[in-house]
Amino acid sequence: MNSASRYSLPALGHNPSSARQGTTPGSFANPPEVGGPRTFSSPDTPGMPAPSDKTAWDFMPADWRRSSDGRRLAVSVRPELAPANAYAYEPPAGFEPITQLEFARLGQITPEMRRVAEREPHLSAEEIRDEIAAGRMVIPANRIHLANRLDPMAIGRASRTKVNANMGASPISSGTHEEVEKLRWAERWEADTVMDLSTGGDVEKTREAICRAATVPIGTVPIYSMILGRKIEELDASCVLETLKRQAEQGVDYFTIHAGVRRAHLPFVSKRLIGIVSRGGSLLAKWMIHHEQENLMAQIWDDICELVRQYDVTFSIGDGLRPGGLADATDAAQLGELEALGELTERAWRHGCQVMIEGPGHVPFDQIEFNMKLQRRLCHGAPFYVLGPLVTDMFPGYDHITSAIGATAAAYHGAAMLCYVTPKEHLGLPKKDDVKQGCVAYKIAAHAADVALGIPSARDRDDELTKARAALNWEKHFELSFDPDLARAYHDEDLDVDTDFCAMCGHDWCSVRISKEIGIFVSGKDADYQWDKPKISAALNPAQREILIQRGVLSPAEVHRLASKTKTVMGATGQKAACHSDVVDDSAAQHLQAERLDPLTLEPIEPVIEDVRA
Amino acid sequence: MNSASRYSLPALGHNPSSARQGTTPGSFANPPEVGGPRTFSSPDTPGMPAPSDKTAWDFMPADWRRSSDGRRLAVSVRPELAPANAYAYEPPAGFEPITQLEFARLGQITPEMRRVAEREPHLSAEEIRDEIAAGRMVIPANRIHLANRLDPMAIGRASRTKVNANMGASPISSGTHEEVEKLRWAERWEADTVMDLSTGGDVEKTREAICRAATVPIGTVPIYSMILGRKIEELDASCVLETLKRQAEQGVDYFTIHAGVRRAHLPFVSKRLIGIVSRGGSLLAKWMIHHEQENLMAQIWDDICELVRQYDVTFSIGDGLRPGGLADATDAAQLGELEALGELTERAWRHGCQVMIEGPGHVPFDQIEFNMKLQRRLCHGAPFYVLGPLVTDMFPGYDHITSAIGATAAAYHGAAMLCYVTPKEHLGLPKKDDVKQGCVAYKIAAHAADVALGIPSARDRDDELTKARAALNWEKHFELSFDPDLARAYHDEDLDVDTDFCAMCGHDWCSVRISKEIGIFVSGKDADYQWDKPKISAALNPAQREILIQRGVLSPAEVHRLASKTKTVMGATGQKAACHSDVVDDSAAQHLQAERLDPLTLEPIEPVIEDVRA
Repeated sequence: MNSASRYSLPALGHNPSSARQGTTPGSFANPPEVGGPRTFSSPDTPGMPAPSDKTAWDFMPADWRRSSDGRRLAVSVRPELAPANAYAYEPPAGFEPITQLEFARLGQITPEMRRVAEREPHLSAEEIRDEIAAGRMVIPANRIHLANRLDPMAIGRASRTKVNANMGASPISSGTHEEVEKLRWAERWEADTVMDLSTGGDVEKTREAICRAATVPIGTVPIYSMILGRKIEELDASCVLETLKRQAEQGVDYFTIHAGVRRAHLPFVSKRLIGIVSRGGSLLAKWMIHHEQENLMAQIWDDICELVRQYDVTFSIGDGLRPGGLADATDAAQLGELEALGELTERAWRHGCQVMIEGPGHVPFDQIEFNMKLQRRLCHGAPFYVLGPLVTDMFPGYDHITSAIGATAAAYHGAAMLCYVTPKEHLGLPKKDDVKQGCVAYKIAAHAADVALGIPSARDRDDELTKARAALNWEKHFELSFDPDLARAYHDEDLDVDTDFCAMCGHDWCSVRISKEIGIFVSGKDADYQWDKPKISAALNPAQREILIQRGVLSPAEVHRLASKTKTVMGATGQKAACHSDVVDDSAAQHLQAERLDPLTLEPIEPVIEDVRA
Repeated sequence: MNSASRYSLPALGHNPSSARQGTTPGSFANPPEVGGPRTFSSPDTPGMPAPSDKTAWDFMPADWRRSSDGRRLAVSVRPELAPANAYAYEPPAGFEPITQLEFARLGQITPEMRRVAEREPHLSAEEIRDEIAAGRMVIPANRIHLANRLDPMAIGRASRTKVNANMGASPISSGTHEEVEKLRWAERWEADTVMDLSTGGDVEKTREAICRAATVPIGTVPIYSMILGRKIEELDASCVLETLKRQAEQGVDYFTIHAGVRRAHLPFVSKRLIGIVSRGGSLLAKWMIHHEQENLMAQIWDDICELVRQYDVTFSIGDGLRPGGLADATDAAQLGELEALGELTERAWRHGCQVMIEGPGHVPFDQIEFNMKLQRRLCHGAPFYVLGPLVTDMFPGYDHITSAIGATAAAYHGAAMLCYVTPKEHLGLPKKDDVKQGCVAYKIAAHAADVALGIPSARDRDDELTKARAALNWEKHFELSFDPDLARAYHDEDLDVDTDFCAMCGHDWCSVRISKEIGIFVSGKDADYQWDKPKISAALNPAQREILIQRGVLSPAEVHRLASKTKTVMGATGQKAACHSDVVDDSAAQHLQAERLDPLTLEPIEPVIEDVRA
């Protein structure tokens, strides 16, 4: 039967491998349209909202005038995709641009845009400028933080997917030093931004220290500070503006402000299974009910915009009505607020402010695409920054997984930044390892989406690792892993010899080894990946040792041995080791396997180890 | 601005909540079409292959004759969806049905079909029979295993998504007893089937013991036994058939047989980054190259069919050419094999055998839908049983997460069973905790897909848990969790008092608590979920204690205290405790929080604890 008559491949997008290695036909996402509303995007299933036909160019400050020369800015690779109204403008006399958006609107490339182009080489500085001008990208970079250690980065669907890690002291707080340590830990696990959600301890001093120390942008939810020592009912405009000013002066790069929750939405909330689960949202709902007024933040939105513009603090307009369970997803309250977020975006753009939008939360897997594409429409492409979403509610303790599933789909369908969820979500405060687990799960989600979207070169490290795997080159395998210590520790738990098989299948059963034996496959033969001889792996470093202790599979004595072994002690010679299928014969392989523990009973085979190692 | 003009909801499928609780509009998947080719299905993005217009009714045994009365079987709720050619047939004289497929073709409902209908109440026994007759569902139930302890279950996209857990001894094997323990552990974490992949120890005795002990179907890859003590090159037809017969007599419920790898596919493999990663596939490739013959399994396929039919062993036709990295996904080798799997399916159906198909592996997120829908087309709806797939290669040590992401998408787009991947994948043999982690990650994936597909009542437990969460009813929250011990332990790590907040936000910052205070929301007011008073939680049980010890956050003394506390010791009174927002005033809340450890420094605040607990 003929393949062509039975199926055809869907239209293909860009190959995410820079070298087009391997045999995959390439990404099935849409071809890239940087400069247009779809930049990198998934194909639409039927019924999905189309992108907005507007951009930030349609919401210019009232006192800017179009240049008389009719010159166009923000051109796209495909001119028909370029934003409407992207003409050269003249600001009022004496105007000094401050925000990245303002520079972009004037056609200027800032040092921050250049730095982003260095960090995201699939985009040029010009493309970054044009994405910012269109409102589809932000560089959260408070000018005060820039004067410190901030390394500028961008959030937008044209760039790689970003990950945020939350931290912050609770009312029984840790000290400033501990918070800075947590910041370093999140940076270690490659969080792209960090939110300081402190509600206890010396929050001012802590925030100051974090802003000084951070190389990544710092976000806050300023309402938390506004109600310290004050009831929510007492909140007024001057308190709001004072708090925002103080935090802006400290160098906070983006503010979550829940200005989209409105009185008209509250009746929809009453039908929910779990009401309001956003802290800011619930506080402002209480304020509105008490004062019988519209949301205070919305009332003074123009004042807030003018204030944050002076520092180029980016808005992260909060979704106070995000669903707290699958049963409340995509409901009238949530979508009503999303419309309000779109209007707030338009107003903020008119003030020259950079904007991103926060999103849910808990959303069934089938509803994620719609949620992402509706935001793209209603908020005219402003970057979407989502929390998860969790795709099931019944796995507390594993919500880094339930939400990483949703986060991957969210990023593939349009979200630009993913706020991590840790295993402690819904149960308590994340500990150090929870922060790591959350970061890793979300780096997985972000990376998987970037590969799927066909972002150029996104798949290169996967391919390099696959080549190392094909060569059974363990050292390269670990080096290329996101968490090399963990991978090395897990490997050595069973077999601390780097050879042409692993303990999972053993020598005789290793398909990769067999595949290498089949000459015509040429599998794992890349010259750069070849080794000469099997070797005892290096001694466990402290991090690897800690991982194995925590797993609790090996006896303390066995972990100690792995941590103290050296090549000479173990009789290994030379610096190179091999992964050729023919360097270990069957009996040698059996011996290598037998000298380790029994991986099935979970008991160390101590006598055997003593015999061999003595 | 009017919502209706700005967007509309996509066409809606079935609401997965039996009570339609909450405010979500319902599933965005296609409406159910049980009886037709789409049963429960995701909407197609452009370019996806349509379902096959054939079913198992189109591949009847040559000696069955259509009844002269022209009566139709296998009617659907919507007659236009019912399979073509689902007419009443007359088998040859003296024919005795053995397999579930044969009974279904004769219009008979077996006790196993009835049992499945009990376990999956959204389907009637008649619907199950008709799905089986169409080839879209299997009940893997060897008649010998049925005579032991097997509790029949079904695999097919009309039923809930199933999860398989792999186990098995390596060449340094554990004993039979340990393998049975591992079986029990996988059943404890709700694996729906278990594959015994033993390649070492007394594999015969182990398999026998597992088949006797298992209440879930057992699968094997019989080629592993065929080459014990024999080189792959020595494999011949009689060895294959003898091994299959022996395992069938032991009660194995399904066999993975890699009959789809063909000589014509091997040239495609040579261009791959990582050749063949299936053990069975690599062995048979080696056999074909050595003998310069077509795949032995394919050569004797009809004999194999006749043999397995006698026991009603279900085929799980293996994908020996599944990709081993993103770079090799959806390539000519993989799709060529998939076509061969379709032809093997047709032939097996003609012999009356039940069939499912195995699938990849490593597949970028964007390519998953196509892979699932192409299988549905080429294999005429035979259930798809996939391994993951992993959506990135560069996170070894976390592949239960990388693959649970792919598995959710796979099930949503059509896969019927998900083979778990553990954190040890690619690195070594899974230990007991890895088995648990793999099972949990895959139960998440399976469940999330069932909710997304709109399978009736799939969301009920999520909704119940959300209601408990809204009421801040911790006991119910934990009871409804998939892993109650873990959830309880994580909660008590910070705050071993069940009250109307948790340590994540603390009393003043609990949005759920605030939401409850806002009278009009009526959040968490369900009468069944109300408690009266805060109470000290129960002492940690051994499992919970173990979880906290392994986390390593608390001091041993602190874990001991949590494990030995009792209500009376802690001064709590009564059996009920409350989660009303107004039962704990601010100062009491501060006190409850302060008497626990500092969750941020990760150090126990021993003096404070002593003061309070003394």
